[in-house]
Amino acid sequence: MIWTIIGISAAFLTMFGFVPQCLKMWRTKSVKDVSGLTLFQFSVGVALWMIYGIHLKDYIIIGANAISLTSLLIALGLYIKLNQKKS
Amino acid sequence: MIWTIIGISAAFLTMFGFVPQCLKMWRTKSVKDVSGLTLFQFSVGVALWMIYGIHLKDYIIIGANAISLTSLLIALGLYIKLNQKKS
Repeated sequence: MIWTIIGISAAFLTMFGFVPQCLKMWRTKSVKDVSGLTLFQFSVGVALWMIYGIHLKDYIIIGANAISLTSLLIALGLYIKLNQKKS
Repeated sequence: MIWTIIGISAAFLTMFGFVPQCLKMWRTKSVKDVSGLTLFQFSVGVALWMIYGIHLKDYIIIGANAISLTSLLIALGLYIKLNQKKS
């Protein structure tokens, strides 16, 4: 039971890890110090995890990474939009 | 073979996902737009993944998350240091 809680907490914290960064970008409208490469690298990595999950037919891996990818694509979209606006 | 490459690529991209953010903070010495909460939330999440891996005795989960945690603690340390300097 305790291990299930630890596993689920770990999954939730990392799945929604970029949500505070999204909110901060949305609030401040500034991305000067944010690494776009970190967002891009995570997006590609998480997309590959999802593809790997499809190969394994593991719905936990597919689902968790689909959620991560969604928040990352929002973060990346915001980053690109705000970065263009700046220049 | 192709699936092994996809799995390993996914692991490497996400394990080292915060390295570009660390390098950017180090270079610019500015963290104004970086979400400290994202770094903290990922650190706790990844630490819990590592603990979960220890429970499962799965050395892949332990190792991958230990590497992630190391880069995250460096990122978090840099963030705290540069954020204090600013104020």
